[in-house]
Amino acid sequence: MAGRLTPQRESELYEAVLDLLRDVGYDALTMDAVAARTRSSKATLYRQWGSKPELVARALRNNKPVDIGQIDTGSLRGDFHEMVARTDACQMEKDSALMRGLAHAVHDNPELHTALRELLIEPEVGGLQAVLRRAVDRGEVRADNPALGFVTHMMVGAFVARQLIEDRNVDPDFLAAYIDAVILPALGVEPG
Amino acid sequence: MAGRLTPQRESELYEAVLDLLRDVGYDALTMDAVAARTRSSKATLYRQWGSKPELVARALRNNKPVDIGQIDTGSLRGDFHEMVARTDACQMEKDSALMRGLAHAVHDNPELHTALRELLIEPEVGGLQAVLRRAVDRGEVRADNPALGFVTHMMVGAFVARQLIEDRNVDPDFLAAYIDAVILPALGVEPG
Repeated sequence: MAGRLTPQRESELYEAVLDLLRDVGYDALTMDAVAARTRSSKATLYRQWGSKPELVARALRNNKPVDIGQIDTGSLRGDFHEMVARTDACQMEKDSALMRGLAHAVHDNPELHTALRELLIEPEVGGLQAVLRRAVDRGEVRADNPALGFVTHMMVGAFVARQLIEDRNVDPDFLAAYIDAVILPALGVEPG
Repeated sequence: MAGRLTPQRESELYEAVLDLLRDVGYDALTMDAVAARTRSSKATLYRQWGSKPELVARALRNNKPVDIGQIDTGSLRGDFHEMVARTDACQMEKDSALMRGLAHAVHDNPELHTALRELLIEPEVGGLQAVLRRAVDRGEVRADNPALGFVTHMMVGAFVARQLIEDRNVDPDFLAAYIDAVILPALGVEPG
């Protein structure tokens, strides 16, 4: 199926899906609305993506161009801070808005949760694991450090709690401070 | 206004509100439905609680009987593990279900967010800060440890990421492992 649309056309479609998601939320986002906004036929949308959950998950994946696993600065601290540097603050705000809108939908829609997990969560977690494996190989982190299994949990906490408790969006300065104060010390790495 | 209902009647009302919240979600929860389920008059509900966001926030607060700040075992590790021990697994599951249902509503309803912050989040954060302050006073944690400002973020991450990434509810064993692997090391405390 892939390859019927040019990469540029595909990106335009994904952008339109994310705009709709921010505007109306997941439940009110219909394939009709996507078709209308992108001047596509519904048949094309279903042929290309199969279902609404998959289309939404792919659109979100397209929105995340930073491939964490490719980052390799030679130190764990360098890798973490490079991740933050490659994500601009405006993008972080937009991502937070999307995630808030999806939190409830994910729970009510197992199909969306599965699509999100396969297309977005697992690649992110996999990239993070590649970064951590290199740190273990370099001898920066002990292979049996129990915090290795909780790095994603720590990261998610930074995003969600900043919003929920402080009522502020995550920004690069906050993330950089959190990495040095929490994630590196938990992993037994000197923060610099 | 307080004191017009017996404490037992008040607890019954709060339980009914939480049941409704789990069943239908925040948006569909109306004061009419609360009045019907609890055989109260709407006038009583408004007189006692003022508004739906405040009623929901108070019901949630009533659901959280563990006063963290009162826990004082003599060590930070002891205090954290006592928090976990005082919350049963079934209650954790019910709380997670409530929090999922509220995540979206919180963003769309500033009044609910304010009520939740004043009645639930700030007392919890305050209790946690009392526990941390005693650890600093005992010399277990350095007063300038930067992780002191992020303990709530770490805790929230444990709850949210467990659900989102692992698709499992938080349970006491998971929380105990997370405390020893992440929170205590970030604070510079030996996990025991």
